Amino acid sequence: MENKIIIGITQGDTNGIGYELILKAFANAELFDMCIPVVYGSEKVLHFHRKALGLNTPYHVISKVEQAQEGRLNLINVIGDALEPTVVFGKTSEEAGRMAYLALEAAVRDASADNLDAIVTCPINLAAMPKGDFPFKSQTDYLGAKLNGESLMMLCNPYMRVALATNHQPLGTVAESITAELVEKRIRQAYESVSRDFLCAMPRVAVLGVNPHAGSAAMIGTEEDDIVRPVVAKLADEDVRVFGPYAADGFFGAGMYKHFDCVLAMYHDQGVTPFKALSMDEGTNFTAGLDVICMAPDHGPAYDKAGKGEASELSFLQAIYNAIDIYRHREVYDESHANPLPHVVQQDRREDRRRFVNPNPEQ
Amino acid sequence: MENKIIIGITQGDTNGIGYELILKAFANAELFDMCIPVVYGSEKVLHFHRKALGLNTPYHVISKVEQAQEGRLNLINVIGDALEPTVVFGKTSEEAGRMAYLALEAAVRDASADNLDAIVTCPINLAAMPKGDFPFKSQTDYLGAKLNGESLMMLCNPYMRVALATNHQPLGTVAESITAELVEKRIRQAYESVSRDFLCAMPRVAVLGVNPHAGSAAMIGTEEDDIVRPVVAKLADEDVRVFGPYAADGFFGAGMYKHFDCVLAMYHDQGVTPFKALSMDEGTNFTAGLDVICMAPDHGPAYDKAGKGEASELSFLQAIYNAIDIYRHREVYDESHANPLPHVVQQDRREDRRRFVNPNPEQ
Repeated sequence: MENKIIIGITQGDTNGIGYELILKAFANAELFDMCIPVVYGSEKVLHFHRKALGLNTPYHVISKVEQAQEGRLNLINVIGDALEPTVVFGKTSEEAGRMAYLALEAAVRDASADNLDAIVTCPINLAAMPKGDFPFKSQTDYLGAKLNGESLMMLCNPYMRVALATNHQPLGTVAESITAELVEKRIRQAYESVSRDFLCAMPRVAVLGVNPHAGSAAMIGTEEDDIVRPVVAKLADEDVRVFGPYAADGFFGAGMYKHFDCVLAMYHDQGVTPFKALSMDEGTNFTAGLDVICMAPDHGPAYDKAGKGEASELSFLQAIYNAIDIYRHREVYDESHANPLPHVVQQDRREDRRRFVNPNPEQ
Repeated sequence: MENKIIIGITQGDTNGIGYELILKAFANAELFDMCIPVVYGSEKVLHFHRKALGLNTPYHVISKVEQAQEGRLNLINVIGDALEPTVVFGKTSEEAGRMAYLALEAAVRDASADNLDAIVTCPINLAAMPKGDFPFKSQTDYLGAKLNGESLMMLCNPYMRVALATNHQPLGTVAESITAELVEKRIRQAYESVSRDFLCAMPRVAVLGVNPHAGSAAMIGTEEDDIVRPVVAKLADEDVRVFGPYAADGFFGAGMYKHFDCVLAMYHDQGVTPFKALSMDEGTNFTAGLDVICMAPDHGPAYDKAGKGEASELSFLQAIYNAIDIYRHREVYDESHANPLPHVVQQDRREDRRRFVNPNPEQ
């Protein structure tokens, strides 16, 4: 395949399962037919994990992304060679957090300079991240702040996509964050992402309610009537196919997600919990809305499994595949939308037809 | 089987699927071997549903619960014979709400007078309920207010139980409702219910966090550290086997509910949404903590299916079975706990043993 996409892969928290995911995934030679992986990390740490886990996946050290070669697991050292990083599996440590941060920073720098087509991040431990450099609640937020575009967190699996109106914020602040502006923006973002990133030609987006039973006719909260319904109605007038608000429990219980291309949940646990309940190991976390495709497995650094060789690489592998798919989809979409025909509204078409039947309607 | 339990069954919203559930369930003759069902409803409405759905389950009208007979689907009219109720399938109507209310009220009255062993409620439409008589957000709340005991909403299926610390309240009020007193009370209620209602000899209760990722080391909200952890620690000191707080998404995603007898979610959508996602049609809604066993299917009146014969009676049937099981469990539990041995703490036992080995340890 020509035009292989270059994927930056960050090592994540070095006391977690990041390297295990990378080493297991790139043991599959077929992956190199589809992409050129560039790991942002540390050779010494990689070596430690390889040895501890008995994973002999070959790698190749380069000093900058431009040197990345096809068919190899390229590795860029993000720390000086002099440093001797310590790995303690499953331990929250400042050092492991700093390593995760340096990898993320370097990948974002290269992506911003247009040297990466996508970034796949290995999981971090938020508590270990350096507070000064990383005043964020998640990698999603960091990527959103540093890269071009406006980010939207979207979880994906083969049969469901769940986007979040609000993400990593305390529950007590969620209701006040739900404004008409936010809901409208999130719906538009979700709509655009499923159109371009997933090539849904006639996308349908479902919106969940804020309150239990979507407010139950305003008897359990009023955000549905005051905020969500008016936005949905406004967008429907613009022919945006958006539906809801739906009660979250019944929506997931009845499998209604199967009828939509994307579900917009109002907050983290409302969307992520049923998503994960239905799709552990196959889910991925996509940061939509950015020029650079950012993808991650939908799990944490799994300290309980670190160093044991028990971690499943499936979600990480799926993140790689998704990044490749989305890159291709965007090419197709952008090409097919590059020279649009002038927009002809229904009324004009009728006029056209009439002119065609009777070329001179005035007579 | 002797000692069949008497179950009051409320008709629920008469424009919904309540009668369909009842008629389909009691078409199984075996059910009558286990319980004596008493439907609180209206013969005319029942007749209408029977005809519309082509369900010929026989029934038997009685005027008061004391007349209930074995082997029959007993029916008590809760409205006067003169009234001609109208059924419009799938329509929110004041009349259908009033009918639901009258049935609920009558069943609660009979249960309070010790004439029912359990109540199974068919689903209501909250928006149709009479505001004056029913100033509640759910049947759970009504039952909790009217019956003896302190109610706890608990969803059950064959492999998972999810109890709610707060239930039908606007999302914006949840965080402020989560106090140490409430969390402690809910854990104790859940613990007691799984011990007595489900005969778990060594129950294990899991508590979810309030915030995304259970606060992620207090970086996304502090309720976990300020409220939940201290309560869990306090109860652990009393040998109450309670664990957490866990991040809701990872908890359900990793199937951790399989390791616990009950999961205490902090609010409605956090617990109910993953529960239903994993168990539509087999789940039931148990109002624990009351002297009378109150059980319901875990779905609404399903207006979209009403009158079409498409509704599944499985959850309703499961509610009947669960009510019977819990009744038997309580008998066993209460009998085995009626004359407890005096509590001997470990220290005393060691003393006893020492005395046994050396009857006079002072020498």
